[in-house]
Amino acid sequence: MALAATKEAKTEGQAFPEVAAELKAALRSELDATNAVILDHLGSRVPLIPEVAKHLIGAGGKRLRPLITLAAAEIAGAGGENARYLAAAVELIHAATLLHDDVVDDSDLRRGFKTANVVFGNKESVLVGDFLFARAFELMVKTGQLPVLDLLSRASCTISEGEVLQLETQGNIDATEEMHLDVIRAKTAMLFEAAARAGAGSLGASPHAEKLGQFAENFGIAYQLVDDALDYGHGAQDLGKTIGDDFRERKMTMPVILAYRAARDDSERAYWRDAFANGSDDFDRAKALIDRDDIGAKALDHARGYAAQSAEALDGLPDHPLKDILRELALASAERPF
Amino acid sequence: MALAATKEAKTEGQAFPEVAAELKAALRSELDATNAVILDHLGSRVPLIPEVAKHLIGAGGKRLRPLITLAAAEIAGAGGENARYLAAAVELIHAATLLHDDVVDDSDLRRGFKTANVVFGNKESVLVGDFLFARAFELMVKTGQLPVLDLLSRASCTISEGEVLQLETQGNIDATEEMHLDVIRAKTAMLFEAAARAGAGSLGASPHAEKLGQFAENFGIAYQLVDDALDYGHGAQDLGKTIGDDFRERKMTMPVILAYRAARDDSERAYWRDAFANGSDDFDRAKALIDRDDIGAKALDHARGYAAQSAEALDGLPDHPLKDILRELALASAERPF
Repeated sequence: MALAATKEAKTEGQAFPEVAAELKAALRSELDATNAVILDHLGSRVPLIPEVAKHLIGAGGKRLRPLITLAAAEIAGAGGENARYLAAAVELIHAATLLHDDVVDDSDLRRGFKTANVVFGNKESVLVGDFLFARAFELMVKTGQLPVLDLLSRASCTISEGEVLQLETQGNIDATEEMHLDVIRAKTAMLFEAAARAGAGSLGASPHAEKLGQFAENFGIAYQLVDDALDYGHGAQDLGKTIGDDFRERKMTMPVILAYRAARDDSERAYWRDAFANGSDDFDRAKALIDRDDIGAKALDHARGYAAQSAEALDGLPDHPLKDILRELALASAERPF
Repeated sequence: MALAATKEAKTEGQAFPEVAAELKAALRSELDATNAVILDHLGSRVPLIPEVAKHLIGAGGKRLRPLITLAAAEIAGAGGENARYLAAAVELIHAATLLHDDVVDDSDLRRGFKTANVVFGNKESVLVGDFLFARAFELMVKTGQLPVLDLLSRASCTISEGEVLQLETQGNIDATEEMHLDVIRAKTAMLFEAAARAGAGSLGASPHAEKLGQFAENFGIAYQLVDDALDYGHGAQDLGKTIGDDFRERKMTMPVILAYRAARDDSERAYWRDAFANGSDDFDRAKALIDRDDIGAKALDHARGYAAQSAEALDGLPDHPLKDILRELALASAERPF
């Protein structure tokens, strides 16, 4: 039934928010309890810290990563307090990286709101990010699950590596698809994968951790590839979303890599090279070139491939109502509007 | 013998480097092994990461915090691989906070060298700091000592809180001695304390953790108070050290708090108030006022008080040659030249 609804809604790009809402509803009590853990751990005797943290983590946000942790735990038969602690920890790690990302990218808008670095300052964002990261570890330690602690600290290393890699490929028009996928795997998909594995392993080693990890890793790659396409106005656009941020920040993403490869002459190649080496205000030309060759659709095709792999990874897992929702979510992620 | 040498050398401010060298010599093989662990964990497939990290952690640095961990472990009878992992972790946490500090403070020099943010950029410093922090956790997890993991993640939270508190008191001439000590305890002394407790607890709960923690906490406070005084040219100055950084950054430290309280008239108070509210290039006047009332000596007296408490905390511990070196180190710290 839900699957039929998904297919119908797909053309409008509404399937993703609907399935995400379905997942939230199925995990409502666990998610509410996780949100309570998160809020509890934003507390500090220094009032500015929860103020900055709540600006980002507050009511909004899809809570995708903690939902993955909670769902993985349920499917692996490992639900409970530990899973909630780990779900909260994963969201805090994510929040810490967002705070630092916005400083690194000089961003001023996120989810349509002014970023913390604009409202509170770069310094505050760096320090509160550090605080959240430390709090995340404090939460993980409560579970006493050393393999999960190892997993999440290694994942955190990998995320930083991915961010540095992204910084290094910034402005480099010769960056390849492989280089970009490497960045995506490290900066985005690693935390998705770790979120799933942590949930599955929240009470000890689980035979389902591997498949759940594969599901989440591929889901994360698809998710990020859609993010890239949305920033050039492709995919199912949500109203109010600004586009062109990656272009202005000279971030090498899939649409640009594909468009540069499809360039028809030296003047087009020179345009791309200059725009990414030196920066450019001419986003319209970039968008026009990408539109002309239907690059957006090609970039989204990549995402669909990973979404399909994500869904497939679930096949080897025991039957569970949440498994069906996760499968729909993965497939819908390639069509998501925000 | 060593104690006599200390007393003799004190007037020249040479006792501290000598005792620190003595401590390094006594722990040479453990420290070398710890340095190897640190270098090993700076490795990354992203070459920029070890490059930035080594710029800071490389050959230089006093390695005070890991030395405290190693010494505490030996005194508590808990020396070995775990202690080395924790000593390395503590140094990596320290390095991560320095990288972020230099970004937050817009610093351009540290230990006479250009800071990483100047050489590599603010973005790189933020991200590599995150990497080091994550690596520190990875190292701690290897020990399997959950209480130590809890201790160090909480300490990391407290450090960030201290940094935010410092940011909030910046430029506030009405900051009190108590507020400043609160900042110092959180941003500096907490990691010293955690370093000692982690060493003592590296193989499990130790009855000596409490005293060793007290030693290190008070040592850390004394150490930071001397830092504050050195920045106004007081204490045993090392050649080549720049002074006036705290003044230019409008950081409220002990010399300024005492000098403002000792101001003789409204015009002096107005000078201090304006210099810290709006910033000032007139460091000479600040220094002249501090010199006139012998404020530097008063600030160092505070440090001596904490150094004495640090030394006293060692009394309740079992006899050990390292204990005597730590006592000398604590007492000499109030006279250290750098």
